[in-house]
Amino acid sequence: MSELDTLIQLLAKLPGLGPRSARRAALHLIKRRETLLQPLAGALAKAAAAVRPCPSCGNLDTVEPCTICRDPERDIAAICVVEDLADLWALERTGAFRGRYHVLGGTLSALDGVGPDDLNIERLLARLQPGQELILALNATVEGQTTAHYLADRLAGRDITITRIAQGVPIGGELDYLDDGTLAAALKARRALART
Amino acid sequence: MSELDTLIQLLAKLPGLGPRSARRAALHLIKRRETLLQPLAGALAKAAAAVRPCPSCGNLDTVEPCTICRDPERDIAAICVVEDLADLWALERTGAFRGRYHVLGGTLSALDGVGPDDLNIERLLARLQPGQELILALNATVEGQTTAHYLADRLAGRDITITRIAQGVPIGGELDYLDDGTLAAALKARRALART
Repeated sequence: MSELDTLIQLLAKLPGLGPRSARRAALHLIKRRETLLQPLAGALAKAAAAVRPCPSCGNLDTVEPCTICRDPERDIAAICVVEDLADLWALERTGAFRGRYHVLGGTLSALDGVGPDDLNIERLLARLQPGQELILALNATVEGQTTAHYLADRLAGRDITITRIAQGVPIGGELDYLDDGTLAAALKARRALART
Repeated sequence: MSELDTLIQLLAKLPGLGPRSARRAALHLIKRRETLLQPLAGALAKAAAAVRPCPSCGNLDTVEPCTICRDPERDIAAICVVEDLADLWALERTGAFRGRYHVLGGTLSALDGVGPDDLNIERLLARLQPGQELILALNATVEGQTTAHYLADRLAGRDITITRIAQGVPIGGELDYLDDGTLAAALKARRALART
């Protein structure tokens, strides 16, 4: 197999790229040898060498502990639990959270054979200090909610405030296009309108 | 900027990947350090070092001339002209053509400022031998057809048979869903039905 075929086969393993788009991507790379192909090869090699999980929170970074964990300006009173690094990135992009994170690396799933030992849970329990708030930012799926309940059970009796992010109508969402579950949850979680 | 951000920015430049899917791809790569990230870094470096355009036909390969040009079993009586390497690959996948190729690297386009000198045309004219067939497999676009006519003009008076691939209804295509231009071309190019 030629170098080009090997490259195409590896590119096709990326999420979002099939065999056809992998061929297009390989062609795009070869045509931009200096500006894209070589920098990308270098960036991958550097990332492979430098990026590792944070021993405290599970975030990926080039420093240990990670940039977020070592930032003295971040609030240590709240730890936000997310399933995946992509969720951490999504929350960081909002800039709305100034506490720290804990990346579970998945959710409990009997179907997929994922138990508590497969997730980054023990480290979370060891890390939590009395008086802290644990914000559950897990996906609004059956697995996400199962994991939320499991964590709440394990923390019963400890002086930890457990909260979860709100479920409801997304900003800009039109009621007519929303699923019934979301609408029902939004109705149930209604709040008093702030008067100005 | 961290190694991870650099990687994401470069991945986002690939066709078919936006900022969001580039983040997903980066995460996917980091999680599969041994099985995907390092092999891909290696494959890119090898491709950057080894893959180059064939001096004869413009195909990309690791040998000069390319595997197709040096294959003694391929018919030298026909040269198939394509715009882009992706078109060559598409034709090769069909296995229907056993001649050789010539990759133009684009089409003439007054709008985009692409003239004959920007394409791999002189080498084609120099390469053609009397008695050969030149098959134009250019896209059925205005630019593709302009390029086809330009090539035909340049070859006027030389002993070269010029053909072009057929236009018509795609296999499995439903007439009702086809554009008028294709239908009109298919009607005009009708052929006698072979009786069995």
